[in-house]
Amino acid sequence: MRATTDEQYLADFREMSANGATAGGGVERQAASEGDRVNRVWFAQVLESMGARVHYDEIGNQYGLFEFVPDAPFVGLGSHLDSQPLAGRYDGAYGVLAAAHAANRVARLAEEEKISPRYNLAVINWFNEEGSRFSPSMMGSSVFTGVMPLEKALESTDLAGTTVAEAFEEEKWTPVEQAPKVVSYGEIHVEQGKGLEAAGNTIGLVTATWGAKKFQAVVHGEQGHTGSTMMADRRDALFGASLIIAEVQRLTREFPEFELQASVSQLTLEPNSPVTIAREVRFNIDLRSPNSETLETAQKRVREIISAAEEESCTRVELNVTHEWALNPYPEAGVELAREVVEELGYSHQEIFTVAGHDSTNMKEHVPTVMLFIPSVDGVSHNEAEYTKDEDCVAGLDVFTHVAIRLVEGALLKG
Amino acid sequence: MRATTDEQYLADFREMSANGATAGGGVERQAASEGDRVNRVWFAQVLESMGARVHYDEIGNQYGLFEFVPDAPFVGLGSHLDSQPLAGRYDGAYGVLAAAHAANRVARLAEEEKISPRYNLAVINWFNEEGSRFSPSMMGSSVFTGVMPLEKALESTDLAGTTVAEAFEEEKWTPVEQAPKVVSYGEIHVEQGKGLEAAGNTIGLVTATWGAKKFQAVVHGEQGHTGSTMMADRRDALFGASLIIAEVQRLTREFPEFELQASVSQLTLEPNSPVTIAREVRFNIDLRSPNSETLETAQKRVREIISAAEEESCTRVELNVTHEWALNPYPEAGVELAREVVEELGYSHQEIFTVAGHDSTNMKEHVPTVMLFIPSVDGVSHNEAEYTKDEDCVAGLDVFTHVAIRLVEGALLKG
Repeated sequence: MRATTDEQYLADFREMSANGATAGGGVERQAASEGDRVNRVWFAQVLESMGARVHYDEIGNQYGLFEFVPDAPFVGLGSHLDSQPLAGRYDGAYGVLAAAHAANRVARLAEEEKISPRYNLAVINWFNEEGSRFSPSMMGSSVFTGVMPLEKALESTDLAGTTVAEAFEEEKWTPVEQAPKVVSYGEIHVEQGKGLEAAGNTIGLVTATWGAKKFQAVVHGEQGHTGSTMMADRRDALFGASLIIAEVQRLTREFPEFELQASVSQLTLEPNSPVTIAREVRFNIDLRSPNSETLETAQKRVREIISAAEEESCTRVELNVTHEWALNPYPEAGVELAREVVEELGYSHQEIFTVAGHDSTNMKEHVPTVMLFIPSVDGVSHNEAEYTKDEDCVAGLDVFTHVAIRLVEGALLKG
Repeated sequence: MRATTDEQYLADFREMSANGATAGGGVERQAASEGDRVNRVWFAQVLESMGARVHYDEIGNQYGLFEFVPDAPFVGLGSHLDSQPLAGRYDGAYGVLAAAHAANRVARLAEEEKISPRYNLAVINWFNEEGSRFSPSMMGSSVFTGVMPLEKALESTDLAGTTVAEAFEEEKWTPVEQAPKVVSYGEIHVEQGKGLEAAGNTIGLVTATWGAKKFQAVVHGEQGHTGSTMMADRRDALFGASLIIAEVQRLTREFPEFELQASVSQLTLEPNSPVTIAREVRFNIDLRSPNSETLETAQKRVREIISAAEEESCTRVELNVTHEWALNPYPEAGVELAREVVEELGYSHQEIFTVAGHDSTNMKEHVPTVMLFIPSVDGVSHNEAEYTKDEDCVAGLDVFTHVAIRLVEGALLKG
């Protein structure tokens, strides 16, 4: 059996960080890419060395089952091993490995009859949380919770035109079985922001997700020669897009600091030629705020920005909302459970919002859920330089283990 | 033997326009793509039906040789069959087919001993004039004239990473022989602008190419999470790029109308993900003017625009000149030869500048050269809606044929 020590956890984390490692000290493990594949195989071996049985479901979620009570349903502990391109080592991977080690500790305590599980434990590596290769993000947990139909997810294509279904055919992740029945859920993640670090706290009790509005914009212009098409005759889709992208960023300055985040980060041109004016440019717009009114006002301003850009560039712009949610609270009972555990263990802590979405955003609509954060140095995220101190990693594992003990003993569940 | 009539020319043009045809009435024949391949095979058959011998050189230029005088050097007549993505039917293709039909007419006149050729005729389809798939543009004529080393051209890659050499391996264009020795050159092309149409003239005598400065810009930012990286901490490369692209276009308004053209049309992001701030954005900047002072001033202003963008977006921008040339005259003797022919035939005509570059831009530095334009309806170019009237097409063919007769009889050449 794999050791349950902090040292073993840290050694495993270092070993895992070699899977899909980049020259810059990060990892690249986009969903169902080479890095993700290698890391999943490695993780299956880790789970098996802890005595878990590993299987997959039809959307590629990876499960490690620890069974204490025949036929009882499962407590889920999870996050995601996939990453952005040139990403950091921590992000979802920290939490998945913490879930495995927490489960291993729980299993050993159960063996020694030091705890009395009423439920079984499923460690979960959700497929494609990042959404960088296949859209949308949080795909595995969305299919699991029924938010997204399996068929639709399997049809999603990457920028090279490969579908999720085609990627799976290459991966051959077996055995594929029905997903386990999960009745409560816990997740731990690095903060990806500076809140805990600034306050000097070790554990964040996540109480809500910032509101968000995500859009797809399509600028329709007209192809032409970059030399011979006179300026007055142009309908340049990239000019139109650049006006919008610049002003959407500047929009954040119209609000108090930390009130609105605005980003454009994915953009494609048709054609993408050095001598032909683009006829079409597509890009995302991502607005986030803890305040619903701010999001409404920002959306109105985006429409004004677009009208001005249409006029100046002689283009036509389509704007569609692709996702939106208001400030989205985590269930209070989960927050209280986490608070009890953290206070018992004596770690410094605070309530905190998450700006980013997590698989727990899906799960909390489905079952009682606990969401925890540990600090990110300088708040650096989706970057090879992402870092969390070892002492915070193992503190998080300790807290998460004790949350898991409570959950398998039936906390948050009636009867 | 293929007929030398205008009707045959027009029928051939319609037939050619089916090669690589697009649903929108245009063509897509990027260099060494499927459309280009099909059209080259078709064109080889046309040349052979005229009695020409077809071969290729090492950079993929396609030649149709009409030999009247054993061992004499060649007059070249050419343009390019490759196209931009979703392009029009005319562009270079009009001129290559006009070259073949002009050569066929010259060959029949020579057979009938109505003219006395002192040189042979080579119809030339230059490889990759467009530069949309492989950079730089005018590749075939650049290698032919020694402006670019063959090895460097063969190493050029498309956005998918395929090199020209790899594309050629697939094409198997044979036989590959040494390029013919060309001593004078003629080219006819659609104007791609509105000058002839506005003046109501049929033939343009091209006297110069606008000056140009072309740059590659690289914006260096830092990857981060589009949600959780606070605005004040961002170094967003796409934000920096959008500020530059918007202002480079607006720059043209600082000059009199028709004085400066400015374009950005090719752009790539790293990464290109909906949830990660781009760390690097690369794009071209294309400035064109008939006035060298304007280009100098514009370049200074671009540097100011970049400094402001760097400051506002907290990014760092590299800017490198990739090509530049001042207003570039065509040799006077060639313009005068064309003027004589056009006046003799009685077509309305004018002197004209070209904003776009052509293979003749390379050839005129190498040998005596004649460059002709026919009108483009509404000046539409690099667009499926590109159109030139049949009557203008055949008028151009008539003029080009008579220019070819003069050239094979030794015009523009001493001794």
